[in-house]
Amino acid sequence: MYEIDLNLPKQIVADVLSNHEIHSVAFVGCGASMSDLYPAKYFLANNTDKLNVQIFTANEFNYDTPSWVNEHTFVITCSLGGSTPETVEANKTAKKHNCPVVSLTNKAGSALTVDADYVIVHGFHANFAAKCEKPGYAIALAVEILQQTEGYDHYEDMITGLTNVFELCENAAQSCKKLAKKFAEDFKDDKMIYFMASGASEKMAYSHAAFLFTEMQWIDAAAYNTGEYFHGPFEVSTEGKPYVFFMSDGATRPMDARALTFLERMGAKVALIDSKDYGLADAVPASVVTYFNPLLHLAVMREYGNQIAEARQHPLTMRRYMWKLSY
Amino acid sequence: MYEIDLNLPKQIVADVLSNHEIHSVAFVGCGASMSDLYPAKYFLANNTDKLNVQIFTANEFNYDTPSWVNEHTFVITCSLGGSTPETVEANKTAKKHNCPVVSLTNKAGSALTVDADYVIVHGFHANFAAKCEKPGYAIALAVEILQQTEGYDHYEDMITGLTNVFELCENAAQSCKKLAKKFAEDFKDDKMIYFMASGASEKMAYSHAAFLFTEMQWIDAAAYNTGEYFHGPFEVSTEGKPYVFFMSDGATRPMDARALTFLERMGAKVALIDSKDYGLADAVPASVVTYFNPLLHLAVMREYGNQIAEARQHPLTMRRYMWKLSY
Repeated sequence: MYEIDLNLPKQIVADVLSNHEIHSVAFVGCGASMSDLYPAKYFLANNTDKLNVQIFTANEFNYDTPSWVNEHTFVITCSLGGSTPETVEANKTAKKHNCPVVSLTNKAGSALTVDADYVIVHGFHANFAAKCEKPGYAIALAVEILQQTEGYDHYEDMITGLTNVFELCENAAQSCKKLAKKFAEDFKDDKMIYFMASGASEKMAYSHAAFLFTEMQWIDAAAYNTGEYFHGPFEVSTEGKPYVFFMSDGATRPMDARALTFLERMGAKVALIDSKDYGLADAVPASVVTYFNPLLHLAVMREYGNQIAEARQHPLTMRRYMWKLSY
Repeated sequence: MYEIDLNLPKQIVADVLSNHEIHSVAFVGCGASMSDLYPAKYFLANNTDKLNVQIFTANEFNYDTPSWVNEHTFVITCSLGGSTPETVEANKTAKKHNCPVVSLTNKAGSALTVDADYVIVHGFHANFAAKCEKPGYAIALAVEILQQTEGYDHYEDMITGLTNVFELCENAAQSCKKLAKKFAEDFKDDKMIYFMASGASEKMAYSHAAFLFTEMQWIDAAAYNTGEYFHGPFEVSTEGKPYVFFMSDGATRPMDARALTFLERMGAKVALIDSKDYGLADAVPASVVTYFNPLLHLAVMREYGNQIAEARQHPLTMRRYMWKLSY
């Protein structure tokens, strides 16, 4: 049974609210970590009646700090290794403005934890479920902020979802190896790959373009929301064009379905990762299923990433510049 | 003298506020029109103390309408020709929730105007300054919403900027022809081009990747915020790699400078459109210069677009699917 400690975000939020009236929430990170905060931002921004909820790449938060950032701003930052300089600096920015700060990181005691008021150390390396803990804890914080400030009709459903989804993610990633191997064979020689998704999964498309393909495989990549596809990007969808398509169950599925239909009509090459194929709605209540797509997409895409790295003989840890140069 | 009618947004906002208490602002559009709303969203989201300010691709607004959308939500929609089905539908969604709706369009009487409470018909075709009217009016609406709801210390500076910037944009686009021709020669055979920008200009990078290159030139393209560059995308920056780089004056310039330095260090091929080269800060007060970068970038990029279309003998109006198929 894979799970996160749901009491931890609950207690942290209760503690923050015991001495701060919260008006706004800022999610702050860089790259994949910012993207892993996006499902929580999407959930909270769509469901709050009162809070101002925004997300930032860390240096925009540092260099152009919004005027509303103050002691009433709940800041949630994230860095896997805890050493991302811009995000470490964002914690200083937040503390300078007297914000309560919660940081998510895989590394206890890392630089990110120095200025944080609260730290959640999430799993990552152990298995696929662990790789979903980062966005999972962010969603749990968002759920508790909403429930404890203004209440949320589907609170219990979100808790059920957060209880069940990690097991589902692990099983999904374990079960997709054959499809992932086929993906790797089909896509290993492509020079440029598009990623598409919608709703809470939008930044899963973005982060896998930016980190799995450009960063870890040195393959050009771009990401588009499926709702944006027909307003430009669809003009390059010709026969055999490579797409990784994160299809969501829930509110925005009709947007995905429309784009997928067009891609298929034009004979594009589509690696489809569809939440319905992995039974997301069986693990998560229908009322909130839309918010759990990103975790499922993340887990399955991890195995796809492992397989393409293997097929290309290009390890996911190989870098040109990162960890090697000062910049 | 190029200018917009600043009284129009002022009066529209006053009229809305005379019978609605406003708690939130939703900017809604698709593709380039959503991107043209982004500078206004960026300005308002960063400077308000009280409003919840979000931006949506139209169908996410339609299919997953936030719980807070109601009579206290000021909805601003935009479609150049006024016939974008998703955005026309967004006006219906907004009216269903009793929101006051202002629509920006180049076409009086278009479908977008049917459900709008107020319409601003902006210029577009006449010249480069006219092409900046769409984002310009959106910023003007944002400035009036802020000033008339909670006040804004730099209100007069924003009005000065909105008075002067269109003339500057026209002059900049007229003066860049030689650079634009060089860009066209240098980039016309590239198969994949990256766009980069930061701050209020972020979506100028996005929209030119999505519409100028994928849509109008059938060239693969991706866009990244310069603050995200070092967290993945920089790994594909090798010698001769093509980038269009929108450099901003103002708050986020250090982010741009850091990314540009690295691109140059790696010998990438960079078409640099730098607001400082066009004297943005001479036309616009320093206190607010950061918000006017997108208009300058848009105007200059338009001439770059004209020149690359000419060099490639691929008119900007040529489409595979748009205007030809049902989808």
